[in-house]
Amino acid sequence: MERTELINLIKRKKSLLCVGLDSDITKLPACVMTAEDPIFEFNRAIIDATLPFAVAYKPNLAFYESNGVKGMMSLQKTMAYLSDKRAECFTIADAKRGDIGNTSEQYAKAFLSNEGDFDFDAMTIAPYMGEDSVKPFTIYPNKWVILLALTSNKGAADFQFIEGTNGQRLFESVIIKAQQWATESNLMFVCGATQATMFKDIRRIAPKHFLLVPGVGAQGGSLEAVCDNGLTEDYGLLINSSRGIIFADKSADFAKVAADKAAEMNAQTSKYFK
Amino acid sequence: MERTELINLIKRKKSLLCVGLDSDITKLPACVMTAEDPIFEFNRAIIDATLPFAVAYKPNLAFYESNGVKGMMSLQKTMAYLSDKRAECFTIADAKRGDIGNTSEQYAKAFLSNEGDFDFDAMTIAPYMGEDSVKPFTIYPNKWVILLALTSNKGAADFQFIEGTNGQRLFESVIIKAQQWATESNLMFVCGATQATMFKDIRRIAPKHFLLVPGVGAQGGSLEAVCDNGLTEDYGLLINSSRGIIFADKSADFAKVAADKAAEMNAQTSKYFK
Repeated sequence: MERTELINLIKRKKSLLCVGLDSDITKLPACVMTAEDPIFEFNRAIIDATLPFAVAYKPNLAFYESNGVKGMMSLQKTMAYLSDKRAECFTIADAKRGDIGNTSEQYAKAFLSNEGDFDFDAMTIAPYMGEDSVKPFTIYPNKWVILLALTSNKGAADFQFIEGTNGQRLFESVIIKAQQWATESNLMFVCGATQATMFKDIRRIAPKHFLLVPGVGAQGGSLEAVCDNGLTEDYGLLINSSRGIIFADKSADFAKVAADKAAEMNAQTSKYFK
Repeated sequence: MERTELINLIKRKKSLLCVGLDSDITKLPACVMTAEDPIFEFNRAIIDATLPFAVAYKPNLAFYESNGVKGMMSLQKTMAYLSDKRAECFTIADAKRGDIGNTSEQYAKAFLSNEGDFDFDAMTIAPYMGEDSVKPFTIYPNKWVILLALTSNKGAADFQFIEGTNGQRLFESVIIKAQQWATESNLMFVCGATQATMFKDIRRIAPKHFLLVPGVGAQGGSLEAVCDNGLTEDYGLLINSSRGIIFADKSADFAKVAADKAAEMNAQTSKYFK
């Protein structure tokens, strides 16, 4: 999906919402567990119910890989189901991959190629291995790299805030250097919402890039603080909620409740849409 | 596999060799391409031929994921094939995963649990997200985390050498901090062989940990320099070669040639075994 298409999608839906499909098989509602493929059945219901409210869907690969081959089939079916909804939503493989060049090429092929089983619009990438580990993800037309910069977890403090002798903290070095590898039309950054006060610092060095913001909801970040500090004239934010939406209810009404939660998130950001 | 078992395996085989199963389907010998599952067929032949010479096998997940669901089936079959050879080799999922705690738990379950499809002895992990992204991989008994420290690629220079105001370079901070999260009995570090001169610095801060060393062969690292600077009294090194062994020959003799190449690597390190 092109940047302008994404911006138009946000405007049309008046939504910044990305629904995280962290479809943990041990947490699914009982009513889907009799289906042949409970994870797919769950995802399909969540997608059908939330599509009017969500700009993006983000399956978290770990929750599929943890079910082995069967889990990857659930992911494949989910992406096939989303394939005729390509104009209505942006899709993100939350994969956090990254390896030497010839290997990153294979990961890019796995998740971004339109000839493979998945064909996502974007995928999350870890920056530790530097330029040649990131570049192979940038070569697919209209596909995006979403690079980890400032994550929403406690461990973010272990390395991401290390201040280099150049005065930059590690997450700032990542944001600055990565702009040599890709543009605001195919590069986003992951910036955790629990660090909302940092968004001002990030906008100073990445004024136009989209930010994918996890950590709202279950992880405790404030939606308003994120918007006040992170929004740009092109919106520039995709705000993720996973557990807070998809597991809000475990009854047979789970999908309807998920849609209500998604609508609530949009209501909280409605003031930012004129 | 326990640390003492691993050390004994190294002594018994007089080998430090890890064979990287980067089984790129576009590079397989023609003779396996008629098999129902060419990647598995290739891996099986490579394993049969090299098992006397190799201490470890390291399937690189990217080369399986790039074939979608089918590729994950090839990986599952490969690990099932290795399951009755558990005492004869150490297995590493080269996955370079890492995410917030509840997600890393799922990746750990995917690749380290003996109830899943794969049941590896170890997996490679990216350190960027810190402690809670690494810890879930340390809870499986006799299973190992192999944390990226100093990688073998050019992009390693982008962030890993950033010197913090505490005087430590980033890869040194990773090695020092991670020792609070796990012990030398379940934690190794990835240290690239193209950086052999760095091994002395690494041994100063990690004198006993095993190091997984990629970058020998196709990537140009020197085996002798690695051993001279990296060996400990418990050996403490697993030296990986992927393309240099598995793709050394494309004829019907490919597996025999792979075994010869593996034996050659062992010959180069034989002087280190009394």
